[in-house]
Amino acid sequence: VPTVSDLGEDHLVAAVLARIREVTGARTGSLLVGNGDDAAVLPPGGPTVLSTDTLVEGVDFRHDWSSPADVGAKAAAAGLADVVAMGARPEALLLSLTAPGGTDAELLIGIAAGAAEEAARAGAVLVGGDVAAAAEVVVTVTATGRVDAGLAAVPRSGARPGDVVAVAGALGESAAGLAVLAAGGARAVVAGDPGSGSASAALDLVVGRHRRPVPPYGAGSAAAAAGATSLIDVSDGLVRDARRVATASGVVLDLDPAALGPDETLRLVGRLLDEDPAGWVLTGGEDHALLATFPPGGRLTPGFRAIGRVAGRHPGGRVGIDGVPYEGRGGFTHFTD
Amino acid sequence: VPTVSDLGEDHLVAAVLARIREVTGARTGSLLVGNGDDAAVLPPGGPTVLSTDTLVEGVDFRHDWSSPADVGAKAAAAGLADVVAMGARPEALLLSLTAPGGTDAELLIGIAAGAAEEAARAGAVLVGGDVAAAAEVVVTVTATGRVDAGLAAVPRSGARPGDVVAVAGALGESAAGLAVLAAGGARAVVAGDPGSGSASAALDLVVGRHRRPVPPYGAGSAAAAAGATSLIDVSDGLVRDARRVATASGVVLDLDPAALGPDETLRLVGRLLDEDPAGWVLTGGEDHALLATFPPGGRLTPGFRAIGRVAGRHPGGRVGIDGVPYEGRGGFTHFTD
Repeated sequence: VPTVSDLGEDHLVAAVLARIREVTGARTGSLLVGNGDDAAVLPPGGPTVLSTDTLVEGVDFRHDWSSPADVGAKAAAAGLADVVAMGARPEALLLSLTAPGGTDAELLIGIAAGAAEEAARAGAVLVGGDVAAAAEVVVTVTATGRVDAGLAAVPRSGARPGDVVAVAGALGESAAGLAVLAAGGARAVVAGDPGSGSASAALDLVVGRHRRPVPPYGAGSAAAAAGATSLIDVSDGLVRDARRVATASGVVLDLDPAALGPDETLRLVGRLLDEDPAGWVLTGGEDHALLATFPPGGRLTPGFRAIGRVAGRHPGGRVGIDGVPYEGRGGFTHFTD
Repeated sequence: VPTVSDLGEDHLVAAVLARIREVTGARTGSLLVGNGDDAAVLPPGGPTVLSTDTLVEGVDFRHDWSSPADVGAKAAAAGLADVVAMGARPEALLLSLTAPGGTDAELLIGIAAGAAEEAARAGAVLVGGDVAAAAEVVVTVTATGRVDAGLAAVPRSGARPGDVVAVAGALGESAAGLAVLAAGGARAVVAGDPGSGSASAALDLVVGRHRRPVPPYGAGSAAAAAGATSLIDVSDGLVRDARRVATASGVVLDLDPAALGPDETLRLVGRLLDEDPAGWVLTGGEDHALLATFPPGGRLTPGFRAIGRVAGRHPGGRVGIDGVPYEGRGGFTHFTD
């Protein structure tokens, strides 16, 4: 009997979808699960977009590294970014919290307040929620959004050979921040080099981004309006999420290493930690940047920068870097990491 | 520093709402939380209705008493009934599951399949979800629905003096089934009286209803169309949920004991367990019956039966039984039970 760890997140989801088709297939004409997109679309094409995300204490956040409001904001950002990744504008957020009875009430109140703040930042409203007693703190958010009239939701399956691959938002900052926290925090890292103000600023920036990512909330609907052929948010790492687009679209996404060089901040943090910042850019998750493909020849949508192109068709999908297939893991997966 | 147990579910939610108003009040013109209804309504009045519910292993379900599919169906029913309790038709369901890595994958697959089946029973579709590693099994569902064109969502705050109080669906069956399971199950209960076929049938029925409640999914939109002034689903017990309507509406709900007598099945189960079945009807939760108030003088909406009337105004709201205020607990609350 396989456990959920044996299967891993992706195979578990596939098994769930197969069973659901089995038990309901004959009875539901519009089963929407299993499209593999960031969010469900209702009815097919839109305008309503729905997504749910769960964060677990100790796996997705640590109370010694993040304030309650940070945890709530980060959970909300993950859900809202999924809605944006369908080309929609966020509308509403629901929040479900579990905690042991002995938990400081301020923890849950702070999480909810952080989620409400982040919803407001995305132009949405926290409209409801639920609390329940459980062994640990689990935060589940459901985000809804709406695709602008006249536009369709943008799936991850529409990338076509020749398209430009582009990204909006940060890559690798959250992963760099996590590395700083794992090394004891910004103060510990600069202890050997206390004179460096720019070092402290860089460390504080990435730690801040790990605690509260800043997804480009407006970029999704802008990309949809500009005719994006595919859209996804980078929640588990650029290569892993690019591979999802490649697989869903049946194409090769070839990334340009020159466009993926770590910026000054990441290079500085990398030097201080003696780590390669390029890895953060390629495999770091939780920044919730938007990865899009656009038809060739057009002007790039404001907020996006080109990072590669769709090199051709490939049945199973593939991601390459400068023409060389990337075989690494590429990011985080629940149950097997 | 108060813990969540110190506050209890209702005060915790109130504290959360106060904080959210504090941090976002100035920035959001349409904050919808805190209306105290079963589901959020978007925009105010409708047509979209959203609700989220969380079930926790060991608190809300036990794997030795319910199959995985039962757990999924029950979680889905709780969420879908909340949507129905706004007068809406269920449309979509999202499912978030957490479990330890060593959990049998079949458990999560079965939960998802049961949720999908129940969604289909309610005329809705399971459209998406999430899985995450955690210390225990937590099931969070988000249900969405739509109020029919030309109608408004029905809140719990609209009951008026003179209205008829009516209910659709079962009361007390889930609680009776739980009592049977706590007594060792149907086989153990009838062991002393193995000749009784009707006893076995009654025990099996209530255990089945505890495992899979059968909310009256069509009754919500029917009540809205018939002009119901308030609507709520009985998830925590008739008296407790009636008190919520009374408080939100500022009225006295007076229930008629003659209309609340346990039926043949509950009386039989009560005799077998040596328990008073009237208590199950008044305080048993999880059947997800619909409690409505209707303007006086009209014909009762099909599926509903009258169980009392709105006796007058009362600032804080009150529930009486045959004119006598009911002061008992009246149902279940997270963290303090």
